[in-house]
Amino acid sequence: MRDLPQVSHADMANAIRFLAADAVERAASGHPGMPMGMADVATVLFTRFLKYDAAHPRWADRDRFVLSAGHGSMLLYALLHLTGTPGWPIDALRGFRQLGSPAAGHPEYGHGEGIETTTGPLGQGIATAVGMALAEEMDRARFGADIVDHHTWVIAGDGCLMEGISQEAISLAGHLRLKKLIVLWDDNGITIDGGTSAATSEDQRKRFEASGWATLEADGHDPEGIAEAMEQARQSDRPVMIACRTRIGYGAPSKAGTAKCHGSPLGAGELQAAREALGWPHAAFDIPLPVRELWAAAGGRGAEARQDWEVRLAASPRRADFLDHHAGRYPEGWRQALAAHRAALSSKPGAMATRKASGAALEVLTPAIPQMIGGSADLTGSVNTLTKATAPLTAENFGGRYIHYGVREHGMAAVMNGMALHGGYRPYAGTFLVFADYLHPALRLSSLMGLPVTYVLTHDSIGLGEDGPTHQPVETLAMLRATPGLVTLRPADAVEAAEAWEIALDRRDGPTAIVLSRQDLPTLRLDGGVENAARRGGYVLAEAACGPRRVTLIATGSEVEIAYEARALLEAAGIGAAVVSLPSFELFRAQPAAYRAAVLGQRDGVRVGVEAALRFGWDEVIGSEGAFVGMTGFGASAPASVLYQHFGITAVAVAAKARDLLGEAA
Amino acid sequence: MRDLPQVSHADMANAIRFLAADAVERAASGHPGMPMGMADVATVLFTRFLKYDAAHPRWADRDRFVLSAGHGSMLLYALLHLTGTPGWPIDALRGFRQLGSPAAGHPEYGHGEGIETTTGPLGQGIATAVGMALAEEMDRARFGADIVDHHTWVIAGDGCLMEGISQEAISLAGHLRLKKLIVLWDDNGITIDGGTSAATSEDQRKRFEASGWATLEADGHDPEGIAEAMEQARQSDRPVMIACRTRIGYGAPSKAGTAKCHGSPLGAGELQAAREALGWPHAAFDIPLPVRELWAAAGGRGAEARQDWEVRLAASPRRADFLDHHAGRYPEGWRQALAAHRAALSSKPGAMATRKASGAALEVLTPAIPQMIGGSADLTGSVNTLTKATAPLTAENFGGRYIHYGVREHGMAAVMNGMALHGGYRPYAGTFLVFADYLHPALRLSSLMGLPVTYVLTHDSIGLGEDGPTHQPVETLAMLRATPGLVTLRPADAVEAAEAWEIALDRRDGPTAIVLSRQDLPTLRLDGGVENAARRGGYVLAEAACGPRRVTLIATGSEVEIAYEARALLEAAGIGAAVVSLPSFELFRAQPAAYRAAVLGQRDGVRVGVEAALRFGWDEVIGSEGAFVGMTGFGASAPASVLYQHFGITAVAVAAKARDLLGEAA
Repeated sequence: MRDLPQVSHADMANAIRFLAADAVERAASGHPGMPMGMADVATVLFTRFLKYDAAHPRWADRDRFVLSAGHGSMLLYALLHLTGTPGWPIDALRGFRQLGSPAAGHPEYGHGEGIETTTGPLGQGIATAVGMALAEEMDRARFGADIVDHHTWVIAGDGCLMEGISQEAISLAGHLRLKKLIVLWDDNGITIDGGTSAATSEDQRKRFEASGWATLEADGHDPEGIAEAMEQARQSDRPVMIACRTRIGYGAPSKAGTAKCHGSPLGAGELQAAREALGWPHAAFDIPLPVRELWAAAGGRGAEARQDWEVRLAASPRRADFLDHHAGRYPEGWRQALAAHRAALSSKPGAMATRKASGAALEVLTPAIPQMIGGSADLTGSVNTLTKATAPLTAENFGGRYIHYGVREHGMAAVMNGMALHGGYRPYAGTFLVFADYLHPALRLSSLMGLPVTYVLTHDSIGLGEDGPTHQPVETLAMLRATPGLVTLRPADAVEAAEAWEIALDRRDGPTAIVLSRQDLPTLRLDGGVENAARRGGYVLAEAACGPRRVTLIATGSEVEIAYEARALLEAAGIGAAVVSLPSFELFRAQPAAYRAAVLGQRDGVRVGVEAALRFGWDEVIGSEGAFVGMTGFGASAPASVLYQHFGITAVAVAAKARDLLGEAA
Repeated sequence: MRDLPQVSHADMANAIRFLAADAVERAASGHPGMPMGMADVATVLFTRFLKYDAAHPRWADRDRFVLSAGHGSMLLYALLHLTGTPGWPIDALRGFRQLGSPAAGHPEYGHGEGIETTTGPLGQGIATAVGMALAEEMDRARFGADIVDHHTWVIAGDGCLMEGISQEAISLAGHLRLKKLIVLWDDNGITIDGGTSAATSEDQRKRFEASGWATLEADGHDPEGIAEAMEQARQSDRPVMIACRTRIGYGAPSKAGTAKCHGSPLGAGELQAAREALGWPHAAFDIPLPVRELWAAAGGRGAEARQDWEVRLAASPRRADFLDHHAGRYPEGWRQALAAHRAALSSKPGAMATRKASGAALEVLTPAIPQMIGGSADLTGSVNTLTKATAPLTAENFGGRYIHYGVREHGMAAVMNGMALHGGYRPYAGTFLVFADYLHPALRLSSLMGLPVTYVLTHDSIGLGEDGPTHQPVETLAMLRATPGLVTLRPADAVEAAEAWEIALDRRDGPTAIVLSRQDLPTLRLDGGVENAARRGGYVLAEAACGPRRVTLIATGSEVEIAYEARALLEAAGIGAAVVSLPSFELFRAQPAAYRAAVLGQRDGVRVGVEAALRFGWDEVIGSEGAFVGMTGFGASAPASVLYQHFGITAVAVAAKARDLLGEAA
């Protein structure tokens, strides 16, 4: 191997700076300030500390790098290009923010190799990184340090640290003592509105220390100082935050250190002036060969470590397990076990809250699938996510499988994203449905990234009773159903609850929300449970019997029972009525039109929807001419049975609506 | 006045404890542990520190008391009953958690006097309290310390402090040095899942101090220690957190200090044992006369202070201003000024992003309405919420009217709720529409409480372009439209943007979301702007001209322009087509059926909806048989015009859909 050229640190960093600034200029859109400010820190990280092999960006034991300040995406793209990561030719950078380029406005997971997670919505990256660092500890506890031994590095900006989710994540990381998590805070004192002093006076080091972190400080433009801090951070027994004092837009003579270089192109004049100030005479997208070579060498720095690792893995008695784990291959038998469970439920009448039925399904599944990692936002006993097979995960026992997330729904969801991204794990966790509101920004990222995370959302309507309107979701189902990529399931009974879990586990490309009742519901599916009927999203649970179908009653979850009773009233009056259970709008929408029309009885009379939630979204199913029995506003505090009467969600009301539509008042 | 009976502090506190535990027992539902644990602290607060006159619970200069740990609602109800607050007879407490009682499961604003805000969703109370304390400072800066001089006291639990929103609020309060804010942390070491040590290791005092708070500590069962800390806290020049070490369920022999008394009734045996342990032989809901008298005296403690205040107010030159301010009476003239502005816009063709049009409307409104308080979550220049009339509000200038909330959407919304609750202010603030996701739990409370808060939500579709899918809302409009009590307006042009602001300001009983484009939109309403057409939610912007209406194109916001162009294509082909602008689903739904049918052309051919968002929710307007041109999933990163083509949201596509429905392919 020939000697590498003599290239200064400044040149290496300037390569990032100008790739970033020139790409933003070309796109006439983007954020040059952050990459220019953090170029020195990133150069030290990628040339001396980060464990990676650019040619093999999916190496399981690589260090993870998360750009939490996702608007500085060009920093990441410049690094991926310079290190020679596959799929990042210079044209990708020229195509920054253009359709089809992997170099999207913000880093998008799946758009190109080396993007470990989607960032942009502030605070999500740091919280997701906590999940990655946690997964690393979990992997290490399971497979040993000779196979699993990597760090998670995060670049976070002031905005990330102002978002509340960051506190949830920081607090949990400190509690779990995730010592391989290192956050590089881009302490530039600037946000979009100007100096951070307009909105914050926080002592960030003290704040992190209050959560059990170690903290360090470095001049973000002094490579040796940065290196020293990083070296120290790698030895820590706790997560580490390094406050990197930087100048935003470093090198831009008139705009550096101000919000002016945060979110818009520098402009041709300023960009040229920056070239002169930094001694970078090269044209846009032109990196001189010596710099290019040294960056390529940095990209290959980890090749030997990776090869050694491959050798160790090959020799490991845990090799097969590790590969299965990371490929998400579950051990044989879980489906059969679940099918037997479902068949047993479906063979005899009974009553059970679906949250408990979900817990029963988890008791079957978690012993069978070691990848499943449970948890709850401090509602364990209510959401039934803890099983015998899942011991608590603690700082002393990363082999555990149940995470007490604390009252931190938002952080919980992001941490689940991080575990799923890291690889291998199938995280699920529970809270009340109404609090899906607190975690939705992270759930949105589960959807956007296509991560198989399962949300267990219980206490799903006024059926929760006395806790009242703050706890009673009326719009939350609509919010979930409106989220693209998410499959929302609201099972009607214990059988459908078991089916929902099978559907969730079969999904590899997106999240699932399982929405469950607090109150007991009778088993309505007494068909032996051979077929997973919920898989079609909706199906005829009971066909009209007294004559041809004139009424179709369509309901979900706890209201299927009400529809069932309404059907009896109608049939007793000689009106043929069918009940459709519709656990998932999304799965039903994906069925052939003929199937949907047949189920909904589109050519057979009138339709009534029943759900203890708002009508919003239901016209897709019942048509604007259909009737709906549900909520019209917020709930109230009272026992559940009183509330169902009070809000008129009863079998009598459903039957009456149907007769109204038929023009046959009782 | 005769001497008050000798009653021990313990008896006073036990009155709270047993009212709470007995009410929970009677309801067979609720949270006894927190009221029993915090009864001593609350007793000291309400008998010695809190400035209030129970007979006049709306006295403007009262101290505010916020029970952020809302599940401990019986603590508040017991205090309201004992102090003699109107509307809180013992029967109200007997009716705890029953329909119609003011004593709902969680404190519900508006259900009874003395409930300062709705709490229950954790973290909301403390963040709302920051808004109240801020409003106090603002009032004081405006009206002087002789009229405005009160504290805001908060009881917060571990759960409140784990939620991310608490960090946003704490940080902002510290930054603004809200010295009249005092948080009493119920440091009992217990959450639902058990010991807080399962999920957190945080040094809370250090955390608050990092944000610029003073902190103190007290034994929460030592009245003198509590009093000393409260006394000290009232002298602080910064917000204060007092860590009150308490035992949850204090007095319940076998359940105190454990999660078992957190969220369920104690049970008859344990309750009786608590009676014996605490020396409280009285029957359920029976408070001995001496205790009752002393509590009633506490409720009247502030009567003299209130009367003195009334005298000072009567003598104040600012009296009329103060009363107008608190009654929410705006100075004359704002409507005329806005009408003139609208008429000017509507009288000549032009093009302007609606976010800029909103800013222009604010330039007219903010000088006219001093109650309007602006702000943004660090996107001031993008959301156009800052006007010439609104100087920045800082710790040095509470007379300011523009709040730099920082990147803290959730805290921002809760702080706006707090300002609105405190009285007088009309807060509005901006962020990107997609980040409404971050603040929705607080917006939900704006709706539930009926608070006139205005959310300015810009960059409302793929029209924002290059920032890509993380920043492009596709489901957010559905989420807002699904929220009961909220009016969502998506104006089509500058005229409708001005109308939206008039609608928002006329709303006194609920929040408004104004959803705005990043990109320029042509002025389509060139009718002189006399009538506020948006007030009806939807209207015919352009009727079919070439013949009878056969097609109705229904669009919102930036897509109205596309519908307009599609109409031209159809009309050119001899197909009569109308364009309906539908800025608000909610306002339109409230119109008479005949009006809606006429606007939508329900008896005149086919309907096509156009919106750069998902179809979810649109079937209400276009019917399930209608066509829709919009998004079917997440967006992408590219210039806006490219994206509109890419996703097929074009006039050509709209016209083609209409012809398809008519069965007349071009």
